[in-house]
Amino acid sequence: MEKDISQAVIRRMPRYYRYLGDLLDAGVERISSNDLSKKMHVTASQIRQDLNNFGGFGQQGYGYNVKYLYDEIGKILGLTETHNMIVVGVGNLGQAVTNYVKFDKLGFKIIGLFDSNPEKEGQDVRGMKIMMMEDLPKFVKENKVDIAALTLPRAYAEKTARDLVNLGITSIWNFAHVDLDDIDGIVVENVHLSDSLMRLSYNALNNKNI
Amino acid sequence: MEKDISQAVIRRMPRYYRYLGDLLDAGVERISSNDLSKKMHVTASQIRQDLNNFGGFGQQGYGYNVKYLYDEIGKILGLTETHNMIVVGVGNLGQAVTNYVKFDKLGFKIIGLFDSNPEKEGQDVRGMKIMMMEDLPKFVKENKVDIAALTLPRAYAEKTARDLVNLGITSIWNFAHVDLDDIDGIVVENVHLSDSLMRLSYNALNNKNI
Repeated sequence: MEKDISQAVIRRMPRYYRYLGDLLDAGVERISSNDLSKKMHVTASQIRQDLNNFGGFGQQGYGYNVKYLYDEIGKILGLTETHNMIVVGVGNLGQAVTNYVKFDKLGFKIIGLFDSNPEKEGQDVRGMKIMMMEDLPKFVKENKVDIAALTLPRAYAEKTARDLVNLGITSIWNFAHVDLDDIDGIVVENVHLSDSLMRLSYNALNNKNI
Repeated sequence: MEKDISQAVIRRMPRYYRYLGDLLDAGVERISSNDLSKKMHVTASQIRQDLNNFGGFGQQGYGYNVKYLYDEIGKILGLTETHNMIVVGVGNLGQAVTNYVKFDKLGFKIIGLFDSNPEKEGQDVRGMKIMMMEDLPKFVKENKVDIAALTLPRAYAEKTARDLVNLGITSIWNFAHVDLDDIDGIVVENVHLSDSLMRLSYNALNNKNI
């Protein structure tokens, strides 16, 4: 697999996947890059360039085969295999993530919930009992854990992320309002909700449709 | 205020704001663009370029005054005034958003919760009673609503967003897994959690620290 594809391209790939999934659901078998472009508000040349990073997939004059492109992008994004995920920090946000059924359909399977608050021990969320952080090393030994969603207060995020990486869980889906990129060996994807809200505030102030 | 600043710049501004807030909390009064650059893993020239979009704020050789820069970025992002927000769709995610105290501190104040499920009517979340969607027009007349967080299933998102825009709530913080950019007059900021998870999957597969 290519190693030096820009994050800007990677940022757009899930969106392609989503639109192609919609087309597939609507029974569309083939789409031109022009039509896909109009639908997605991205230039046709951008789409071609993005997909060329991975080898193309279109035939000049024939457009894209929707199912084929959908499957190929799914492979590129690693969606052909199941990813076992744990949720670390089972407050409101952790519970929201746990209950988000959509992730299941994409192959992200939540297999364990962890918190450090003893009062939460054994509480049931979506049929799973909340475990304590000290149970995590044993759990990791006995289960394949691919991703940890970090839904805990900022103050605990960095230490917890280091502990997770030391336990071999290097893929961190970080909701805490702090960047964790400094940790050796970590692969982190940040969901900074406050940052997002500030961008909305800016764009509202400047009346911009993104 | 400038009108044609790229979304890539806007994307980075909340992060500057966050780092400057941390420096402020740590009692740092002044920082060079080089030091800020190292801390943020962004080149010093990038920082200077980004800030120059808004007129600069640094003095050659003196670095940035942390408090001043923090305040100025806050103004740029529209954080000097309170934004009244409603949450539309009070499932797990809507409740998580409602309970996220951090937003308060940034001046985003949740003033109403709405759902379409009659079983939820009157239920209490963080001291607020859930109202029904049909109460919304009256509520909007009696209250200043700046932003609507859309935390409802995808199938209802577009219609609801159109209704909100028609009621004059044009700033939509969209958590539904669909793009809403086509709606006339809307200013939308998307939080597509599944897209984010797919990027993590890709980067984990390709072992990339972003």
